[in-house]
Amino acid sequence: MAGTYAGPVQDLIDELGRLPGVGPKSAQRIAFHLLKVPKEDAHRLARAIDEAKARVAWCQRCFNLSEGELCGICSDDRRDASVLCVVEEAKDLVAVEKTGEFKGRYHVLQGAISPIEGIGPDQLRVKELLARLDPEGVTEVILCTNPNIEGEATAMYVGRLLAPLGITVTRIASGLPVGGDLEYADEVTLGRAIEGRRAL
Amino acid sequence: MAGTYAGPVQDLIDELGRLPGVGPKSAQRIAFHLLKVPKEDAHRLARAIDEAKARVAWCQRCFNLSEGELCGICSDDRRDASVLCVVEEAKDLVAVEKTGEFKGRYHVLQGAISPIEGIGPDQLRVKELLARLDPEGVTEVILCTNPNIEGEATAMYVGRLLAPLGITVTRIASGLPVGGDLEYADEVTLGRAIEGRRAL
Repeated sequence: MAGTYAGPVQDLIDELGRLPGVGPKSAQRIAFHLLKVPKEDAHRLARAIDEAKARVAWCQRCFNLSEGELCGICSDDRRDASVLCVVEEAKDLVAVEKTGEFKGRYHVLQGAISPIEGIGPDQLRVKELLARLDPEGVTEVILCTNPNIEGEATAMYVGRLLAPLGITVTRIASGLPVGGDLEYADEVTLGRAIEGRRAL
Repeated sequence: MAGTYAGPVQDLIDELGRLPGVGPKSAQRIAFHLLKVPKEDAHRLARAIDEAKARVAWCQRCFNLSEGELCGICSDDRRDASVLCVVEEAKDLVAVEKTGEFKGRYHVLQGAISPIEGIGPDQLRVKELLARLDPEGVTEVILCTNPNIEGEATAMYVGRLLAPLGITVTRIASGLPVGGDLEYADEVTLGRAIEGRRAL
């Protein structure tokens, strides 16, 4: 649909179309929405983008999102420094935080190993993870990457690096979602749930 | 999820979540994408929003999007001023333009009558439509609003206003989409297709 609209409209549609999950139709719809709302409303979005980029960076220790050098979790003394939860992205960290089950610190790899997307271990914050273990006195690392191919590969890779270091390495459980129906579970998940069965 | 993230990140997620078709999950995904890409890339989107709002306004004649007082179509002398195609939104105008079937001018109502959303005829560019007919020598008006409840109501309303003025008023045909399957057509559409049958 290139060139269908006047310059600035097409530019806006093009830029919106680069966002994840936004196809050409949605980009057009969002652009027309922005053209219709009051100027202040549209500008608030533009400013929010620039503000976030200007103010938010990565925590220098765990690579979570942070406005300062250290994120809120890393600078919180009450967190247990001996247990490290390794996640792929900052949003996964937020998901774990919401459970209220974890009182340790995090390490955000900022991705997962994915040969298809050309992402190898070197593009992840693996070196930085290894460098933290000794100084922070880490005794357990929980590999909390996604239960998909990329996440499993990443957990496997990191786990193998940690094995010789005398640290307890665990992987989060796979199984049936709580409240889920056995009948509707896919066979891989159900298989994992049986494999990971625990004594009552 | 309010307050889960640091201020600027949550602000960005909130603003993105106001866009049409962008739910909380997509807003979060887009926000993290923007936080990850180079600053210039994110800023290009912010600038495109502000630019579009600053430079694009409505054509003073047909209410299409326009960078000047008149849009490209209204200022094109080769367009037939006697036939007016009435659409709901500028994107509908673009859709009609793409067919290459229409050589007249447009009138964009900037919406459709929708009691549910509280949009009555007064919020549409109906007055402006009526004011154009005489000065421009319009002899036919094609009602090209959407074939849904709001669009039909709008076409009916505008049609009734035009009826006493001695202008030919037509409505675009409803029927089966070209390339579509009779088997999969909904009954209303199929009914319309039969009702609107033409001699071969």
